[in-house]
Amino acid sequence: MRIPILKLHDYLLISVQVELDDQTALRFQEDVLEKIHEEGSRGVVIDLTSVEMIDSFIAKVLGDVVDMSNLMGARVVLTGIQPAVAITLIDMGIVLDEVPTALDLEQGLERLQLELEG
Amino acid sequence: MRIPILKLHDYLLISVQVELDDQTALRFQEDVLEKIHEEGSRGVVIDLTSVEMIDSFIAKVLGDVVDMSNLMGARVVLTGIQPAVAITLIDMGIVLDEVPTALDLEQGLERLQLELEG
Repeated sequence: MRIPILKLHDYLLISVQVELDDQTALRFQEDVLEKIHEEGSRGVVIDLTSVEMIDSFIAKVLGDVVDMSNLMGARVVLTGIQPAVAITLIDMGIVLDEVPTALDLEQGLERLQLELEG
Repeated sequence: MRIPILKLHDYLLISVQVELDDQTALRFQEDVLEKIHEEGSRGVVIDLTSVEMIDSFIAKVLGDVVDMSNLMGARVVLTGIQPAVAITLIDMGIVLDEVPTALDLEQGLERLQLELEG
């Protein structure tokens, strides 16, 4: 099961619309990094609106995707984090440190443009 | 298996990155129409770059999605039709009549903007 990655100009748009199991999350991580390399993307928006639950492993993988993408030169914005996901993250003591977030895909794209110009 | 539908402003962006079986295609049809209704979308870009093969049933479902979306007031642009898919469509005598097409997602969005303003 692969999560589709859309390329739009300099950006990648990703809407996670399945529950992430460990394998899907790892494959997702790999796919995002490969796609950044392939397309020379400057930014990535990962929309989590449809993700209802998250565990510590998935949270770590997501955090890693952000750090790895940054290393490769692409800025990542996470959008649509649901209340339950936010609660779980904080309860678990997982802080997605300095990861820009936004309410939805549109605002994520705007945020990304600000980040890249700022 | 559901195909993710991304909402971006007035548009829906859909990148089909799985081979479409009959059930997935029908569910996709339903999901697109529901999402158009829900979001009040004016246009839809369906990107088929990753679809390598298509049969007459899937072709009909896709054609129906276009017609049904038009009825609901949303314009559809198909993008990224692969050579093999194009060959199959024409060989089968299936003409996606008056369906605007474009090379990729970016050009599809531009095309959609032109269609909606024109």
